[in-house]
Amino acid sequence: MRPSSSPSEALLRGLSGTPEVDVELDDQRLLQAMLDVEAALAYAGADVGLLPAAVADEIARHCRADRYDPAALGAAADAAGNPVVPLVRQLTAAVAEPARPWVHHGATSQDVLDSALALVVTRAAVPLLGLLDTATDAAAGLARAHRDTVMVARTLGQQAAPTTFGLKAAGWLYGLDAARTRLAGACAALPAQLGGAVGTLAGYGPAGPAMVRRFADRLGLAASPLPWHTHRQPLLDLAAALGGLLAATGKIALDVGLLAQTEVAEVTEGGEGRGGSSAMPHKRNPVDSVLVSAAARRGPGLLGTLFAAATQEHERATGGWHAEWEPLLELVHLTGGAAARTARMLTGLRVHPQRMRANLDATGGLLLAEAVATRLAPALGRAAAHDLVARAAAGTSFRAALLAEPEVRAHLSVADVDAALDPAGWLGSAGELVDRALDRHQRSTG
Amino acid sequence: MRPSSSPSEALLRGLSGTPEVDVELDDQRLLQAMLDVEAALAYAGADVGLLPAAVADEIARHCRADRYDPAALGAAADAAGNPVVPLVRQLTAAVAEPARPWVHHGATSQDVLDSALALVVTRAAVPLLGLLDTATDAAAGLARAHRDTVMVARTLGQQAAPTTFGLKAAGWLYGLDAARTRLAGACAALPAQLGGAVGTLAGYGPAGPAMVRRFADRLGLAASPLPWHTHRQPLLDLAAALGGLLAATGKIALDVGLLAQTEVAEVTEGGEGRGGSSAMPHKRNPVDSVLVSAAARRGPGLLGTLFAAATQEHERATGGWHAEWEPLLELVHLTGGAAARTARMLTGLRVHPQRMRANLDATGGLLLAEAVATRLAPALGRAAAHDLVARAAAGTSFRAALLAEPEVRAHLSVADVDAALDPAGWLGSAGELVDRALDRHQRSTG
Amino acid sequence: MRPSSSPSEALLRGLSGTPEVDVELDDQRLLQAMLDVEAALAYAGADVGLLPAAVADEIARHCRADRYDPAALGAAADAAGNPVVPLVRQLTAAVAEPARPWVHHGATSQDVLDSALALVVTRAAVPLLGLLDTATDAAAGLARAHRDTVMVARTLGQQAAPTTFGLKAAGWLYGLDAARTRLAGACAALPAQLGGAVGTLAGYGPAGPAMVRRFADRLGLAASPLPWHTHRQPLLDLAAALGGLLAATGKIALDVGLLAQTEVAEVTEGGEGRGGSSAMPHKRNPVDSVLVSAAARRGPGLLGTLFAAATQEHERATGGWHAEWEPLLELVHLTGGAAARTARMLTGLRVHPQRMRANLDATGGLLLAEAVATRLAPALGRAAAHDLVARAAAGTSFRAALLAEPEVRAHLSVADVDAALDPAGWLGSAGELVDRALDRHQRSTG
Amino acid sequence: MRPSSSPSEALLRGLSGTPEVDVELDDQRLLQAMLDVEAALAYAGADVGLLPAAVADEIARHCRADRYDPAALGAAADAAGNPVVPLVRQLTAAVAEPARPWVHHGATSQDVLDSALALVVTRAAVPLLGLLDTATDAAAGLARAHRDTVMVARTLGQQAAPTTFGLKAAGWLYGLDAARTRLAGACAALPAQLGGAVGTLAGYGPAGPAMVRRFADRLGLAASPLPWHTHRQPLLDLAAALGGLLAATGKIALDVGLLAQTEVAEVTEGGEGRGGSSAMPHKRNPVDSVLVSAAARRGPGLLGTLFAAATQEHERATGGWHAEWEPLLELVHLTGGAAARTARMLTGLRVHPQRMRANLDATGGLLLAEAVATRLAPALGRAAAHDLVARAAAGTSFRAALLAEPEVRAHLSVADVDAALDPAGWLGSAGELVDRALDRHQRSTG
Repeated sequence: MRPSSSPSEALLRGLSGTPEVDVELDDQRLLQAMLDVEAALAYAGADVGLLPAAVADEIARHCRADRYDPAALGAAADAAGNPVVPLVRQLTAAVAEPARPWVHHGATSQDVLDSALALVVTRAAVPLLGLLDTATDAAAGLARAHRDTVMVARTLGQQAAPTTFGLKAAGWLYGLDAARTRLAGACAALPAQLGGAVGTLAGYGPAGPAMVRRFADRLGLAASPLPWHTHRQPLLDLAAALGGLLAATGKIALDVGLLAQTEVAEVTEGGEGRGGSSAMPHKRNPVDSVLVSAAARRGPGLLGTLFAAATQEHERATGGWHAEWEPLLELVHLTGGAAARTARMLTGLRVHPQRMRANLDATGGLLLAEAVATRLAPALGRAAAHDLVARAAAGTSFRAALLAEPEVRAHLSVADVDAALDPAGWLGSAGELVDRALDRHQRSTG
Repeated sequence: MRPSSSPSEALLRGLSGTPEVDVELDDQRLLQAMLDVEAALAYAGADVGLLPAAVADEIARHCRADRYDPAALGAAADAAGNPVVPLVRQLTAAVAEPARPWVHHGATSQDVLDSALALVVTRAAVPLLGLLDTATDAAAGLARAHRDTVMVARTLGQQAAPTTFGLKAAGWLYGLDAARTRLAGACAALPAQLGGAVGTLAGYGPAGPAMVRRFADRLGLAASPLPWHTHRQPLLDLAAALGGLLAATGKIALDVGLLAQTEVAEVTEGGEGRGGSSAMPHKRNPVDSVLVSAAARRGPGLLGTLFAAATQEHERATGGWHAEWEPLLELVHLTGGAAARTARMLTGLRVHPQRMRANLDATGGLLLAEAVATRLAPALGRAAAHDLVARAAAGTSFRAALLAEPEVRAHLSVADVDAALDPAGWLGSAGELVDRALDRHQRSTG
Repeated sequence: MRPSSSPSEALLRGLSGTPEVDVELDDQRLLQAMLDVEAALAYAGADVGLLPAAVADEIARHCRADRYDPAALGAAADAAGNPVVPLVRQLTAAVAEPARPWVHHGATSQDVLDSALALVVTRAAVPLLGLLDTATDAAAGLARAHRDTVMVARTLGQQAAPTTFGLKAAGWLYGLDAARTRLAGACAALPAQLGGAVGTLAGYGPAGPAMVRRFADRLGLAASPLPWHTHRQPLLDLAAALGGLLAATGKIALDVGLLAQTEVAEVTEGGEGRGGSSAMPHKRNPVDSVLVSAAARRGPGLLGTLFAAATQEHERATGGWHAEWEPLLELVHLTGGAAARTARMLTGLRVHPQRMRANLDATGGLLLAEAVATRLAPALGRAAAHDLVARAAAGTSFRAALLAEPEVRAHLSVADVDAALDPAGWLGSAGELVDRALDRHQRSTG
Repeated sequence: MRPSSSPSEALLRGLSGTPEVDVELDDQRLLQAMLDVEAALAYAGADVGLLPAAVADEIARHCRADRYDPAALGAAADAAGNPVVPLVRQLTAAVAEPARPWVHHGATSQDVLDSALALVVTRAAVPLLGLLDTATDAAAGLARAHRDTVMVARTLGQQAAPTTFGLKAAGWLYGLDAARTRLAGACAALPAQLGGAVGTLAGYGPAGPAMVRRFADRLGLAASPLPWHTHRQPLLDLAAALGGLLAATGKIALDVGLLAQTEVAEVTEGGEGRGGSSAMPHKRNPVDSVLVSAAARRGPGLLGTLFAAATQEHERATGGWHAEWEPLLELVHLTGGAAARTARMLTGLRVHPQRMRANLDATGGLLLAEAVATRLAPALGRAAAHDLVARAAAGTSFRAALLAEPEVRAHLSVADVDAALDPAGWLGSAGELVDRALDRHQRSTG
């Protein structure tokens, strides 16, 4: 079989990913990572005295991706079931004769591809975490700037009570920070893979464990206590972290999309020339929100695939391993796109405090019903207070109805009622929670 | 944002797909399909008298993919949220001035992209169904050739009773035929999408319904009674059919992989030079089985994504639609690869009847225990017969133990026992079931 | 192991299901279905002359669920891996001695459980389809009553153009009708399972195929051409239909929830005393919308599980089959709950046309921008018309800005502009599409 | 609606779960956990001076599950959308009048249910981790006992090279230990939920943060820096840990099932009277392996559901939260069953070293081909050595063919060849890796 071309590379792919991250995931980088692994293997062998340093130098000299043709390797991979087999063949042919026995020495294809994918992911994590930093800084900026901007909190789609936009943004920050911590941790823990054909390190004699350590050190990856050919917890940790990040960005995108609804109009996505509609000239679509939501919807399926693929046979799997490669890269790709768009969305977000205030006032104080009921509860009992307030809330003017209730007037003055109906007086610990999220963020990034 | 490059296009992609199908899914074909839709829209407009035929000709003249740059369109798509907006802009600029108002007339981006994806899928279905035909013919060939080749049936991993390899292959055929029928049906039912900005066909005045019919006819797609912008049943039918096909091929690959185990060795994958191992020169890996299994493991996650994305808001979705594009193409890609490899695997499969017979005999007739128990049951009662046979099965020679049991000898002669222990006598309707599967296959393809 | 109690049966389960359907899924019904299968097996055996009718009568006489203890059977199932083994043991012990050899004759556990689950599902489908009928009738009623009720159409969360509530309800109807058709079809096609230990029907001698037909007839299920022990397409069809129905109801619930938002307020869920909040006395939560949305979110994972489980080994699976039972019943349970709540939600839905009109007018005619641009396009060209209208839309009064544009006035009179700004004049084929959906519904149910 | 009964509670549920864990998940325990939360809320209020200690005592006195009817609460939950609303109503009615205003003070339904589910899960984790300890101890015992038991390693289903059963068991141990660590960590980090109606803690005035701390302390749960009503990372961590554990047990079950195949027969599941077949008296099914595999197949779908549900709206979700409850409990249920069966499977596993040795020898030394090639590589070059060995491997006797090759004899003596063909000499670091896994296990549990 000839190599397959990729479906819809340029037309659609940019809408789910971002170039800074995707460039780390392409063929050239994967190929270079595979070659970096072969070079590290040779040097580790030299480190532990299995082969001369000059041989390792000779092998490493040929470990440059531009000397190989990904398409030809891909085509040859079909017969082998993975691209490592033809690459090793070509690399062996390329090096000087004395070095040939030492190419890929003691390793198996999965050692190379697992380690290369770990390299690719940790390298892609650099721009990815950078984008996340931009996003979290923007969320922190919003939380700080709008610490006391009063707005409606909504539960089950209904206006419920006052909150602040600062607290909403602090929640976004909190979610992103938590997900970012998982991702950074999972990347740092990604181990190099080295086990040889069946995980016994048989090709290295007594030098096996030392090889594993040197190999991992050379690659800048963690060393695994045992080969993890069919024990995939490190990949599952990574997948869960990526999935959690997609969920955290998806939550922000969902909120932004809902706040940007024409009828709500409390925020607008920034960016000149973005979100216009060909058919409807008046319309401004929240494009980043939509595309981040789309990416978030694709996380769970890929995550499920990786967890399902993790149940692998014996010393190496009959399909489970092969099923991981593309979904893993796809998850990184999607997370990159979601991070980039969340960063842009939050950085450019236009917030409309007046509209927030207007929406808060639209129900004439009804959102403070709990506040009023809470003030009445000590005197009337919680149930009676609730019933009384519910009765007042059914009228046209909540304030007038409250003031007309003898039981209200028996316990609350007009000023008390007005105070109860002031949203700023029913924000609880909103400000303190914002400060706490900002403080945690600062400590985590300081 | 610049357009993203695709991760691992050549190195890995060929291992999950197949060129014949993938070529139908690439940027050029998707772009051409989008342009075919724009052309069909113009001609449909002319058909119903909304615009002059010469205008439609002028538009169609520019609907050639080689005139547009997918990378540039992809880059411009980021601001719009989909690639149709920039394409319409470029197409409009390309046509002669009088035709410009009629480009994309009355349509919305989703009309174009949904219809284009339906075109792409139906076009990709041609080679895909062709590969399936090869696979089903090969399965039919195996079923026919081995109609009476006795082998061990295995349940829960244990040898259970005799069957024939013909019946196993007939089961594969039956599964493939069933899945193929669903896929062909779902493709034939894929509708064109035309609703305009909000699904009212407002841009066409009273000509709306006629437009929908002419547009669908021009594209060779089904006409939908209502716009299906946010009613995605046709896509779900397609996704389920693709998922079912991955499951059917995955079942075959699983069986082949298990039969090819060194300890079982009843089949070998064919193909010179395939499946060799760099580290282990003696080893012959069942590569196609492994890669089909890998593809099958990826179906459920993508299927789940498409079903989850189908819950879409109002007249057009805020992410659900955008989440469909790549998973849908990915499902077609994987199904193509699975069909191609299943076809190759079954066409080249080397079957080892002697080994099948040896495995059948390895347990000294124990597999016929049910046969013996069934023969004894009328006389002894089912439970007593079962217990007696279980007792005999615990010894070293089942036949000897049976003949040593007075209760056996009271009801069965030595010849009866030997007859009961002949696998060929305990095949039930295996042959007839094979004939039936072959007959159904012939009728479905004749 | 003792039998496990069920988690949270009463507290949570009622919120995802509905009693009419759930009663069909409980232990008693499943047990009865298993016994119905054993009885049908005996009668089929009598039909084809394998055993005396009196024996079948004797067996059937004991096939009553109230004679067996589900908890004890469940406990005993642990040693066997399924509940059929202990049930057959108890049933055999219960019948008169001469009938014992004929209990479960020629069958395997999977024959019984697969057929019983098919029975349970087809029986549960009766109330389920009934609930769907209520839901579709209610959707049809809304579509008819509001055929010409003008409202805002929303795309990507933004107000986009006018539509009618009738068309929105017609879309719901169309989605439900399509999903209902799939479900009814998949249920009708559910086959009985009969293959014997390894799918050869070995226990029946030449009577195998006749047994399959009689057995299926007795159960009122379809007859499968081949045993489908490890070929699960019929289950996949069923799962996809249930998943499609969850998506269709989820779409309606999503729309209702969005329309019920405080700021939109175009519909309210009916039902006295429902949706009240303990903390917020003024609040009315759209409870049915929320619970249907919750059910819809759980469909894709269960669907993915069933498709993943469908890749099964050899003649009977090592886990895939066992993984199906609960997810399948759970899907039916969730679909029942979603259908019941959708029926109640649509039946009681309170629609607020005045509010719809107010929301339509809130943007001062901007939603008709496309209408105006379309009227100007023939004269100015599509792009110029679009730009002109976009310019006018940026001002405070769209109408005034339009009338102030010389290019507008050159081509449109004041009356023309006012006509273009009338939502009722820009509904395209909305009414006709409603009629079509109603007509199709009537034909499908008539 | 009346409360729904549970589908197939006793007949099927015990096959996926285990009573020790399931008892913690039932209605009584969930109800008690909800009441524990209400009591802790009252006491925390007293702790921070919001209400008298006597009031807290009065409330706590009524927080006993046996005073409430789960079925009635479940039925009443339908109108509210969750079971907390009716429970609070009944609890309020139950306490003495002066305490009533303080019942559920300042809390929202989600505060109670999220905290209660965290309690339920941490309580269920006690037996679950206990079962895991049994499983890991058994794996450690197998690794220790079989540290030097030579067996065949298999990759892609093919015999590949020698390994030890000790290393295989050490891999199982390593996988279980890793997954166990994640689960224990996720449980310990599960936070109490307290935010009030919209996450501002408005009902507590300045005492909000102190309330959160006291409340969490009283429940023995972690305190969350911010309310996590719609920020679900803690649940995702838990879900991923449960999913990882299902994968780790699924891998063991898969290996056991494959090793127990009739043709391999290297292990047998223990347990008298388990795994017998009604139809096939000779057959011994690996029931625990099958049921653990079944549980493992259900993890990814539930995991995907929880990650998909985590994208939640604003201050409280419109369905995403409600979609979590049952899948979360189901994951715990399945993990419990998988842990219990893995513990039993490993504890009772019968290992057959002679059979392992026989399978190793069956290919006449071919598995040592890499060993021979490695010995020849320094002299001949890796490629030439590989080719030479592959040539020899094609003959009938590998040893004879090797000795007949002049190039072999030029570099290796007969003793060298025989040494190369001794599996025990090609185990690399297997023993050391076993020791390392045991050492890590001891340290983690010591």
